[in-house]
Amino acid sequence: MTIRALIWHEHRHEKKNKLVADLYPQGMHGALKKAFDGEKDISVDHALLDDPEHGLQVDRLAKTDVLLWWGHVAHGEVKDEIVERVVKRVWEGMGLIVLHSGHFSKPFKRLMGTPCALRWREAGENERIWILNRNHPIAHGLPEQIVIEHEEMYGEPFSIPEPEETLMISWFEGGEVFRSGCAWRRGAGKIFYFRPGHEAYPTYYNPQVLRVIRNATRWAYNPAPAWTSVDDAPNVPHDKAPVPLEVKGPKLHEHGEAGYR
Amino acid sequence: MTIRALIWHEHRHEKKNKLVADLYPQGMHGALKKAFDGEKDISVDHALLDDPEHGLQVDRLAKTDVLLWWGHVAHGEVKDEIVERVVKRVWEGMGLIVLHSGHFSKPFKRLMGTPCALRWREAGENERIWILNRNHPIAHGLPEQIVIEHEEMYGEPFSIPEPEETLMISWFEGGEVFRSGCAWRRGAGKIFYFRPGHEAYPTYYNPQVLRVIRNATRWAYNPAPAWTSVDDAPNVPHDKAPVPLEVKGPKLHEHGEAGYR
Amino acid sequence: MTIRALIWHEHRHEKKNKLVADLYPQGMHGALKKAFDGEKDISVDHALLDDPEHGLQVDRLAKTDVLLWWGHVAHGEVKDEIVERVVKRVWEGMGLIVLHSGHFSKPFKRLMGTPCALRWREAGENERIWILNRNHPIAHGLPEQIVIEHEEMYGEPFSIPEPEETLMISWFEGGEVFRSGCAWRRGAGKIFYFRPGHEAYPTYYNPQVLRVIRNATRWAYNPAPAWTSVDDAPNVPHDKAPVPLEVKGPKLHEHGEAGYR
Amino acid sequence: MTIRALIWHEHRHEKKNKLVADLYPQGMHGALKKAFDGEKDISVDHALLDDPEHGLQVDRLAKTDVLLWWGHVAHGEVKDEIVERVVKRVWEGMGLIVLHSGHFSKPFKRLMGTPCALRWREAGENERIWILNRNHPIAHGLPEQIVIEHEEMYGEPFSIPEPEETLMISWFEGGEVFRSGCAWRRGAGKIFYFRPGHEAYPTYYNPQVLRVIRNATRWAYNPAPAWTSVDDAPNVPHDKAPVPLEVKGPKLHEHGEAGYR
Repeated sequence: MTIRALIWHEHRHEKKNKLVADLYPQGMHGALKKAFDGEKDISVDHALLDDPEHGLQVDRLAKTDVLLWWGHVAHGEVKDEIVERVVKRVWEGMGLIVLHSGHFSKPFKRLMGTPCALRWREAGENERIWILNRNHPIAHGLPEQIVIEHEEMYGEPFSIPEPEETLMISWFEGGEVFRSGCAWRRGAGKIFYFRPGHEAYPTYYNPQVLRVIRNATRWAYNPAPAWTSVDDAPNVPHDKAPVPLEVKGPKLHEHGEAGYR
Repeated sequence: MTIRALIWHEHRHEKKNKLVADLYPQGMHGALKKAFDGEKDISVDHALLDDPEHGLQVDRLAKTDVLLWWGHVAHGEVKDEIVERVVKRVWEGMGLIVLHSGHFSKPFKRLMGTPCALRWREAGENERIWILNRNHPIAHGLPEQIVIEHEEMYGEPFSIPEPEETLMISWFEGGEVFRSGCAWRRGAGKIFYFRPGHEAYPTYYNPQVLRVIRNATRWAYNPAPAWTSVDDAPNVPHDKAPVPLEVKGPKLHEHGEAGYR
Repeated sequence: MTIRALIWHEHRHEKKNKLVADLYPQGMHGALKKAFDGEKDISVDHALLDDPEHGLQVDRLAKTDVLLWWGHVAHGEVKDEIVERVVKRVWEGMGLIVLHSGHFSKPFKRLMGTPCALRWREAGENERIWILNRNHPIAHGLPEQIVIEHEEMYGEPFSIPEPEETLMISWFEGGEVFRSGCAWRRGAGKIFYFRPGHEAYPTYYNPQVLRVIRNATRWAYNPAPAWTSVDDAPNVPHDKAPVPLEVKGPKLHEHGEAGYR
Repeated sequence: MTIRALIWHEHRHEKKNKLVADLYPQGMHGALKKAFDGEKDISVDHALLDDPEHGLQVDRLAKTDVLLWWGHVAHGEVKDEIVERVVKRVWEGMGLIVLHSGHFSKPFKRLMGTPCALRWREAGENERIWILNRNHPIAHGLPEQIVIEHEEMYGEPFSIPEPEETLMISWFEGGEVFRSGCAWRRGAGKIFYFRPGHEAYPTYYNPQVLRVIRNATRWAYNPAPAWTSVDDAPNVPHDKAPVPLEVKGPKLHEHGEAGYR
C-alpha cells in the first residue's frame, strides 16, 4: 500500500525575495519532497497556490492520503470553497500536516475553531525542540532534542484547543517556549502541527526536521475508505429503529423528511 | 458579582406551528428564562433572530458573561459576521451553552471545526440521561439519571472533537446512545453542549433539565476581564526579548512589522 | 515484523463451574486465541494465573508486544511484584488490552489511578455497542453497531480517568449505558479497555468481538525499542547542560548524586 | 463557605540542613501558609510527616477540602495505608495541589499511574514560567510569565499522563523546558501539579508563586458532598433495572451477591 502524500505550498516568497529564492532554488516544496526520497511506501507530489483550484481539485484530493501545508504571506488568497473541500477530506480521513506559518492558514484555523495566534520574532536564534515521548511513531529515529541553529521564534500563548497529544515543546534562546508538535483528530482525520520552517533559514534541509515530516506522514495515514457521509444527519424512522418503537406524543417532522441545518 | 446570562433564541417554530405555540406560549426562551427565577447571582435576558443584529450587538455581547443558544430551522439565516462576533467573545472568555438542535448552529460548528452531525428520530421515545460524575458542578442537585418521558432521539456517531469532559450519556428507548453533556474550552471560553429540548415536547418545563442549564451557566462563567487580544500575534523584537539577543542570520521582516495572516 | 501477543487468563471459572467449562472447553483463552487464527503478522501465546510467576516472567514480558488480560474471581491473587512488572512494561511501550471484568484487575487500576468501578447486572440482556469513529483502526471491518444477544450489563458511572479517546458506547436493554471502548497512553504504552466478555455467555465466539480484539492488538503495537529508562530521573550537571551554565546560589546535592524518591 | 486547606509537609530538610533551616525558619509549611494570609474564604492548617498518622487521620482528611503536598527526601517513609486514604479522598472530591519534588510522592504517582520521572539539575539557574491561558482561574492576577531568579531545573520528558490542561510551561537558562502547571481529574477530585519550590532557594517567598498556590486552592475546591461510594460496584438486579427485564440465559452470580475484586 502506497501512502499518497501531497505537499501544498504557497510558493510566493521564492518569487519575490532573492534570499528565499537562493536558499530554496527548487522552492520550499522541492526541499520538502526530499523528506520522502527513497521511501518506497510513500509517493509524493506537490500543489501550488497559483495552480488551477490551487492544485486541489476534488478528484485529486480524493486520491490524497496525507496533505502537507506550508503557507504564509498569501493565506488570504486561498479560496474559501477550496478550504471547505480540504476540511471535508480531513473529516473523511485524510491526514493533515501543518507546517510553521501554516498555524494561520485557513484550513488549520477552520479545523481548530480558535485564533491559532502566537508571539513571534525573527532573530535567527537557537531553537531546541524537546521530544516528550521518544517511542511515539513521529519520534522514530530522533534524538531527545532537535537543535536548530537559526530559527524564527514562536512563543506561547499559542491559542489552540488543548492538544490531544503534546509531543514536542521548543526552547528559544530569547526566553520563550512553544508547543511545537501537537496532535488532534477531527472526524476520521489526524492532524499534526509542526513548528519549524521559516523561509529565511535552511530548516528544510535539516535531516531531523525532514524525518519528523516523514514520520508524521506515516502516522497521519488512515487506510480506511473515505468516510464520505461524515456530515450526513440521517433520519432513522421509528419503524427502522434498532428496537421496535411506536410513535408517542406529537410530531413536527414528516416521515422521511431531512432535518434542518 | 452578577452573572449576566443571555438566551439567544431563533423563535420561529412558535410563530408557524400551533403545536409549539401552544406548548410554549411565551416562546421557548420564556420557558428557559424560568431556569433562573429567583437566582440572585444571575441576571437573564433574551435575544431573538429577528431582532436587529439578531440582538447580538457588539456592546451587548461585551456585557454578556454566558450565552445560551437554541436554533433549528433557521440556522442558515444567522449572519456570518455576527457568528464571528460570538466566536470572538467565546475566545475572550464568554461562556457558551449550546442546546439541542444548536449542534448544527453556526457558532457551535465554527468553534468545534467538525460536522457536528448525528442520527435522529422524532418518535416521542423515552430518554435516560446518565450523569458520569455526580460531583461535577453541572450535576449539582441532580439524581444519577434524568428521565425524560418523550424526546427526540439523537444518536451516535456525533461528529464532534473528543470532548475534554464527557459528563452525560443518553440512553434511548429505540436502541441508540448519545453523548448528551460535553465540555470544551476554546481560548478563554468554556463551552457546554446539552442535548434535550425538542420543540414539540415540554422538555423545558422539566425542573431537572432547567437545573442543568442553570448549573452550566454558573460553570461557564469566567470572571476574568475579557481577553480582547486573544487573536493578536505580537512581534517581540530582539531588543525586547526576555533574554537579550543579537540578531543572527538573514531577516525577511522589517523591524516592528506586523506578521502575515 | 511479527506482533507477539500474549493472552493472560485467570482460568478459574472453567475449573469450578460446569457452565463455563462447557461453554469454553479449551478455556476462555482458547477461544480468545482464535481471534488471531490465520493472521500472519501476529503470533499468540497464553499465560495463566497458576503458571509459575503467573506466566509473566521478566524475559517473557520483555518479548511481549501486546498483552491481553482477562481476570475476575482471582484479581487479588495476582502478586503485586508481578503487577509492577507488567506496569513497567506498559510504560516501556508494551500494548495492553483489558477485557471485561479486567476493569478491576490490578494492572488496570494501577495504570488508571482511579477506582474503575461501575454498576452491573447479570440478566442475559441485549447489548448494542455503538462505534463512534468508524474509520478508527480498532473499528476496521465492523458495522456501525455490534449487537450481542446476551451479555452482563455494565453501567455508568465507570470511574476511570477521562479517556483520551472514547471509541465505543454500549446501550443495554435494561436502561443503562457504558463507555465500552476506551483508549489511553501511559508512558510509551497504549491501553485499550473493551467491555464484552462475561464468562457465562458465548461472547468470545462472536466474530465481531474477536475482530475488535484483533484490531486493538494491532493498534496497541509499538515497534519502537523498549523505553527501559522511562522511570529514570537523570541528573544533568551544570557542565553538561545543553547551554553552558555556571552554578549560582547555594546547593544541597553533591555533584553526580542521585535524586530522592 | 470556608475552604479548608491543609498543607502537608515532610519537614526534614529544615531539621538536618542549616541552609534550609536558615531560609525557612518556620519550616517551608510556615512560608506556604502565608499564601493564605488575610484570605477570609480559606482556612489553613498543616500536617507533618512525623505527626501521628502523618497528621492525616481519617476524620481530619474528611474535613479537608484541598490538600497541598510537599515531600522530597522521605517519600518512602509515607505509609501506604495513609496514601490509600489520601487517594480515596481525592476520588471523593478533595482537591490536591502537588508541589515541586512532590512529583515523586506516593499519592501523586498513585493517582497518575505513570513514573512521573524527569531530568533535573541544581544550579540556581533562571526559570521563566509561561502561562498559556491568562484567563484561567489559576492565572488570576498574574503576568504573562513568572520569572524566578534561582531555581532547580526540571526538564522533559516528564512521564505523566497527558494533562487534561497544560496551563504553564517553564523555560530554563540551561536549555530545558518543562510542563510546570498541569491539571487532571481523578474521580470527583481535581489535581494540580505546580513545579517551583526547591528547598535551597527562597521560592516560597515569591508572591507570584504564592498566588498560584492560592488560586489553585480555590480552583481545586469542590463544594459537593464527598462521593464516599465512588469505589462501590453496586449490583442492580433485573427487577430493579431502570427498564423492567426478565432474566435470559444462564447465570453465575446469586441474586444480591457482591461482585469480585
